[in-house]
Amino acid sequence: MCGESATRISSMRILGYSFEDYAETVKNFHGSEAPGVLIGGFMVALAVRKLPEGILYDAICETRSCLPDSIQILTPCTIGNGWLRVIHVGRYAITLYDKENDRHKGVRVFLDAQKVQAWPEINAWFFKLKSSKEQGRPELFQQIREAGESILGIQQVRVQTQFTVKHHKGKIAVCPLCNEAYPAADGEICLACQNNTLYV
Amino acid sequence: MCGESATRISSMRILGYSFEDYAETVKNFHGSEAPGVLIGGFMVALAVRKLPEGILYDAICETRSCLPDSIQILTPCTIGNGWLRVIHVGRYAITLYDKENDRHKGVRVFLDAQKVQAWPEINAWFFKLKSSKEQGRPELFQQIREAGESILGIQQVRVQTQFTVKHHKGKIAVCPLCNEAYPAADGEICLACQNNTLYV
Repeated sequence: MCGESATRISSMRILGYSFEDYAETVKNFHGSEAPGVLIGGFMVALAVRKLPEGILYDAICETRSCLPDSIQILTPCTIGNGWLRVIHVGRYAITLYDKENDRHKGVRVFLDAQKVQAWPEINAWFFKLKSSKEQGRPELFQQIREAGESILGIQQVRVQTQFTVKHHKGKIAVCPLCNEAYPAADGEICLACQNNTLYV
Repeated sequence: MCGESATRISSMRILGYSFEDYAETVKNFHGSEAPGVLIGGFMVALAVRKLPEGILYDAICETRSCLPDSIQILTPCTIGNGWLRVIHVGRYAITLYDKENDRHKGVRVFLDAQKVQAWPEINAWFFKLKSSKEQGRPELFQQIREAGESILGIQQVRVQTQFTVKHHKGKIAVCPLCNEAYPAADGEICLACQNNTLYV
């Protein structure tokens, strides 16, 4: 599996990017060429390709580690615009789903624990079998590049409505304790003052 | 207040960016020149400037709306690298804090509900007094540009340790139900299978 031809390797692009250009973009945004964000590039590219063309989609990420950044780099979905939601259940998976249709049909792409076994460096990284220092970074990078989408699984899913509901702030009030604006629906005082645990 | 001189206005930069360049970057990342992300630019710039020079910092964002994207655009902190944490208490505020010192001292910048009153369009946007359509977008954009940091408040804070603790996955296992990798500490099966609420 590691010996796929150069033609196959060089043709595996991540949406508009070559692998190297994508890695460079990851470094700039994420701070390093993190293996998880690199693999995430192939995951997002596969999911986008499997969606019906021209639909508007939102994204769900099942882990808070690395993967949200692949989505933010490659799609219009960000944390701040609300089109990306991180629902941390600890699985290395993303879902892109039709946000305009009530049935919220979508494509879920995950890193396949079985398929990963064919790539020793990726397997060691994914299952944390070596410390970061022990991992041969160039070898890991190369295996990610060569493996591309071959280590991924894909499923057709429908997202439960509770995870697709838009957050609306409603009326805005000023908290009588901290004097800052907050959604009035949160109560008589803002959530921060209700719990008062954020700062010493 | 709205009549500040052109010199003052043109000198108000957002870290390395002119206001227009920052707005363009916001549009590319966030999908639109959202008022909240634009104001967030001034918030991040002020917080960065008030931190001791050369320290390594992490970020907390007190709302999931818009503001996380200002942080992700302007600092090394992203959702995926874990240096940005969204703790949604519904206040329009960010904190940058020293991540290497146990006392986690930092700078909190918030949108000041009192100061905003001097800028009718910003005030109408912040308190949702007009519908999006009613808001004069060019006027709002111009007031944000002119107001700059003058509508912000700043506090010295110390972040509670519970919000600065790093998440570690620990040992990775394969879930016997979904056959996907997950943090073994989550239990006998992964969190997604324990709750089984994500997908229909």
